[in-house]
Formats: sequence, C-alpha cells, structure tokens
Amino acid sequence: MTSVPLAEPPSYEDVRAARERLAGLIPPTPVLPWTRLGERLDCRILLKCEQFQPTGAFKIRGATNALLSLSEEERRRGVVTHSSGNHGAALAYAGRRLGVSVTVALPEGSSPAKIRLLEEEGARIVPCAPTQEAREATLARLVATEGLVAIPPYDDRRVIAGQGTACDEFLDQAPDLDTLLVPMGGGGLIAGSALALRARRPQARLLGVEPAGAADTRESLMTGNRLTRHQPETIADGLRALVGVLPFAIIRRAVDGVLTVTDEETITALRLFVRETHAVIEPSSATVVAALLALPEKERRGRTIGLLLSGGNVEPRALAGWLAREEEPRADQRLR
Amino acid sequence: MTSVPLAEPPSYEDVRAARERLAGLIPPTPVLPWTRLGERLDCRILLKCEQFQPTGAFKIRGATNALLSLSEEERRRGVVTHSSGNHGAALAYAGRRLGVSVTVALPEGSSPAKIRLLEEEGARIVPCAPTQEAREATLARLVATEGLVAIPPYDDRRVIAGQGTACDEFLDQAPDLDTLLVPMGGGGLIAGSALALRARRPQARLLGVEPAGAADTRESLMTGNRLTRHQPETIADGLRALVGVLPFAIIRRAVDGVLTVTDEETITALRLFVRETHAVIEPSSATVVAALLALPEKERRGRTIGLLLSGGNVEPRALAGWLAREEEPRADQRLR
Repeated sequence: MTSVPLAEPPSYEDVRAARERLAGLIPPTPVLPWTRLGERLDCRILLKCEQFQPTGAFKIRGATNALLSLSEEERRRGVVTHSSGNHGAALAYAGRRLGVSVTVALPEGSSPAKIRLLEEEGARIVPCAPTQEAREATLARLVATEGLVAIPPYDDRRVIAGQGTACDEFLDQAPDLDTLLVPMGGGGLIAGSALALRARRPQARLLGVEPAGAADTRESLMTGNRLTRHQPETIADGLRALVGVLPFAIIRRAVDGVLTVTDEETITALRLFVRETHAVIEPSSATVVAALLALPEKERRGRTIGLLLSGGNVEPRALAGWLAREEEPRADQRLR
Repeated sequence: MTSVPLAEPPSYEDVRAARERLAGLIPPTPVLPWTRLGERLDCRILLKCEQFQPTGAFKIRGATNALLSLSEEERRRGVVTHSSGNHGAALAYAGRRLGVSVTVALPEGSSPAKIRLLEEEGARIVPCAPTQEAREATLARLVATEGLVAIPPYDDRRVIAGQGTACDEFLDQAPDLDTLLVPMGGGGLIAGSALALRARRPQARLLGVEPAGAADTRESLMTGNRLTRHQPETIADGLRALVGVLPFAIIRRAVDGVLTVTDEETITALRLFVRETHAVIEPSSATVVAALLALPEKERRGRTIGLLLSGGNVEPRALAGWLAREEEPRADQRLR
C-alpha cells in the first residue's frame, strides 16, 4: 500500500482538523508520571499511554480520522487494508462504530488472537499468502474488482494527521516537554508527532527510536535516500516496516536524532516498566523506555522527558516469558 | 495494631479535609473506560486506577494523610507500622518525602522485593518473628521504648479518611456512577469510599467484594458481630486481614451487599483484565473484576459501573505464571 501515497505530506493544520473530527469519539489517553524512575534519573518522566486505547494502540487515531475523511460515496464502498496488526484492528474497530464495512487481506498463519479480534469487530477477512507481494496483490484486486478504498497504515496524509493527535493531546497535558521519545516503524506516529511538536514546542528535542535490527530510518537519514528494502530482525513487531514516503519527508526535516536499542535492552526495559508502572506495553513501545535508560546524563538531568508509548498488544504468553526471566541488575543501575 | 483504634469513625468532612491535605502531593489517578467489556456486558465500565500511584496502591493516600495529621512533636518522634505490604511501602514513601522517619517491624522471611522497596525508601527495618503476636509485640515495644507513633493500616480515622479520597476523586471524574465495586480486606478503602459515596451519590449501589476464602466481613455482617479470628485462604494477599473496628462500624450501615469470588475466578478475571486493558492489577483488585463478571444481567444492563482497583503490586513471576496458563473460554462468555 506504500505504492499509492497521497502526494503531499500533511501539515499541522491537518492534525488540528483531525483533533476536531476525533473529539468526543476518542477520549484523551492519560499521562502518567513515572515518579520513581524519574527520581533515580534526575528527571521528570511523563508517559503518554496509548496502550489504553480500546484497541490497545494509537492506530485507532489515524484509522478513525481516515474513515471520517471519506466522502459519502467512499463510505458506502467500504475500505480495505492488508495490515493484520494494530492498524487492521483499529480500522475494524472504527469501521464498526462508524458504519463503514472493513475488509482485511489476512496472511495465512496469522495468530488466532488477531483473527479473533478482527472477527469480533465484524471485519471481513480475505485470506492470502503470507508474503508482501501476495498481500499487495490481494489488496489491489479488492480495490479493482470491488471498488474498496485502501487505507494504508502510515503512508497517508489522513492517517499521519490522525496519529499526530496523540502528541497534540500530550502537549495539552504537558506543555513543558523538553524532550519527546517516539518509536519509529513506518513513521506515521513520529511524523504526526513532529507536526504537532514543531508547531507548538519548537525548542523541544524530538528523538526517534528504532530497534538495532530494523534501523532503516537511521540509515535512510544518513544517506539521504529512503531505503526501499531490508530484512528486519527484531522482537518489536510493530517497528519492522520500512519508513514510508510521506513520513520520511517529515522526519528528515523535523527529527533531532535517532536512537537504536537492542532487543535485549528492549526486553529488560519492558520488564522494568511493567514492574514499576503497573501498565503493559508491547516491545515496540519498550524501545523508547530502553532509549531513555541509555540517554547520557546531560540529556536527562532536570528535564521533562515524554515517552510516547504506542501500544500494549502482546500475546499473554510472550509477556509471561519476559516477566519470568531471571532478575538482572536494574537497568538504570547498570548504567551508573 | 487493631487493638488501639481511635474511638470514633471518621465522617465525610474528614475525607474532604484529607483531600485538601493531599492536594498537590498526590495527583489524581486516571479513570479508564473498559470499552470492549462494557459493550459485551451492556454497561459502561469505569476503572479507577490506584495501581498507578507511585507505590502501586491506594495506601499512599491514607499513609500521607496520617503523616500530615501528626502534631509537630509527633512528626519529630517518627512513626512505626508492622505492615510489610502496601501500607508499609506507602508509609515509607510518604515519610521520606515529608521528612518523617519511618520504622517497619518486618517479619522474617518477607520477600526480597518488599525489603528492597522499604530500603530504597529509607525506612528503618526492625526484624521480628513472622507471627501476628510477635509483630504486635515488636510494635508495642517500639512505641513504649522509643516513643514512635503507630500508624495502623486501616483501623484509624486518619487512614480511613485518606483512603476515602480515592472514591471522592472518582466521583469528580465520574459523577454518574450507578454502582461501585470495592475490594474488602481490613476495610479501610471501602469504609472511606462509603463516606464519599453516601454523601455525594446516595442512590448509587455500593458493593463490597471478598475472596471466598477470606469472607469475614460477610460473616460479620450476617451475624451482626465482627469476627475477631479467621484462617484466610486466598491468593488475594491484600484481603487477608480481618475487617477493623472502625471500618466495620461504617460498612454495616453503608454497604448494599457483599459479593464473594473464588481464587480461580479471580485469576481468570486478572488474565482477562491484563489482556484487554493493558494495565496490571494484583489479585486483591482482580476480585472486583471477577465480581463484575458474575453480576446478574439486571444489575449490569445500562448501568455505569465503577471498579475501584486498589493496586498492582504483584511479583513478576507470579504474574507470568497466571498469564501463561491455558486459555479458557472467555469469562464473560461462560456466563451467557
């Protein structure tokens, strides 16, 4: 779906328009202080908790904004995606509540939990082979033969503007942010965040976080050319996508730096997070916790640091496995 | 410590005074909607999330209110408790921040996690044998020989009034509650909640929840006499205490009903909760989720139901064990 982006990146005005569309439909998610870690790291840590969205991830913002941006005629045709993850679930959830039929091209072998979630939300599932080519071909066929409207997971103005409402809301709740850490996969969340942060808090530092095994955005920024293929190897399943065309256009001019973390650091951070905050995050979000723990002291001391936590959808068994590991020295103690 | 309660139960005015004392020190905890379960059960479910307190439980409210109620001379002497659980941790946390020295009579064999938490907060630990008698004797000795001020975990006006601020805050956030479910152990939380609810929302139903293996309050209400000994057998470690004298005096006139749940129901509810809400609760709080799932349809349909979630302090390994269990039919599906 990254092959048919709308041409121009969105602006902050699009984020504001999205907020007006979403008002009343998507209540603000809470911001929690992580008091104890903040005391240990000499900073104030604020957690923007998108895992508490009804579908467990920020994706509901972009999906809902996209559906609300359709023409009446497009609404009647219905929409389609080939994301089986958080975007697909968000689209199914939003479609059911807004009365738009949602079709998902679902790779064979998808987890029963994902299938159940889509079925519960009344999405129509069209099976396809589990390759990128098959997914895109199935999607293209459904668009061509049934007239469905494709809603891409990140390479889309409406979606990026919707995702940007998370940061815009965060700035209402914490107007004094000095630093914002955001995970980077396809780039929709950080691109939308960048629009809001640059407009409202230009002096704040915006840091993107990638798994070391899927650091395509960092490499793309270094060469100036967006990578178009890679072999991601990371436990952070939400961050395996290549950065999209529109997100990259925004990221390259708005992001102050990219941090990479290993999967081991991510899991250690996830365990610390669950134990101390009593909230759940998925590995994609734990990358920003790991990045915070690795920030140099001068980047932390006295600052108000926001973590944009993208979601909490983990298989209970996987979470159990990470929590049950041997205790290591506390992550923030190891760093001292 | 239940042998030296202050004589009169507190009133709603004490809860309001506690709120003024705590303002600025203890930020409000968020209320999260549990949208998906609410849709399945035909009701609106609101979660008051005390697990997001810095010490992971509501106990910080009563402990802080008690310390702020001390005279200057008492503050200088310091305080003591024999709770090694959430109350002890809360007192240590509050004492450190308010400049009051805190001593905890700690039963030998307490978990390393609990000891570490108390040490991190600078509490002084006095070991004692792991029996109720030894704990009370150690406490009495410290009061007699060192002049420390005992802060009981629930049988205390100041503590009950402080705990009541959770419900009072909840009513600011959700003024239209029809039903409130609250876990019952020593009774401090539900007694304080009753003061706020009866004053501000008298028509709402207040339901207490106990583990079937520690249902002393239900039995005490049935006979009209407070039980003074029992053999609790439940995984909900925060609810093993006998209901206190002062809480019982409030509960008997203010609570509409008591629900009991089995440990098996509690763990099933805990697993469902973590999977769908992406927050963590301890078994003591999961009892109210289990009770909600077992409510008759006429008690649910169309109502706004609040769950007062008391805390989230679980050992990561125990949580891992519960999450890793075989999937059962979904709890709310079994009930249909």
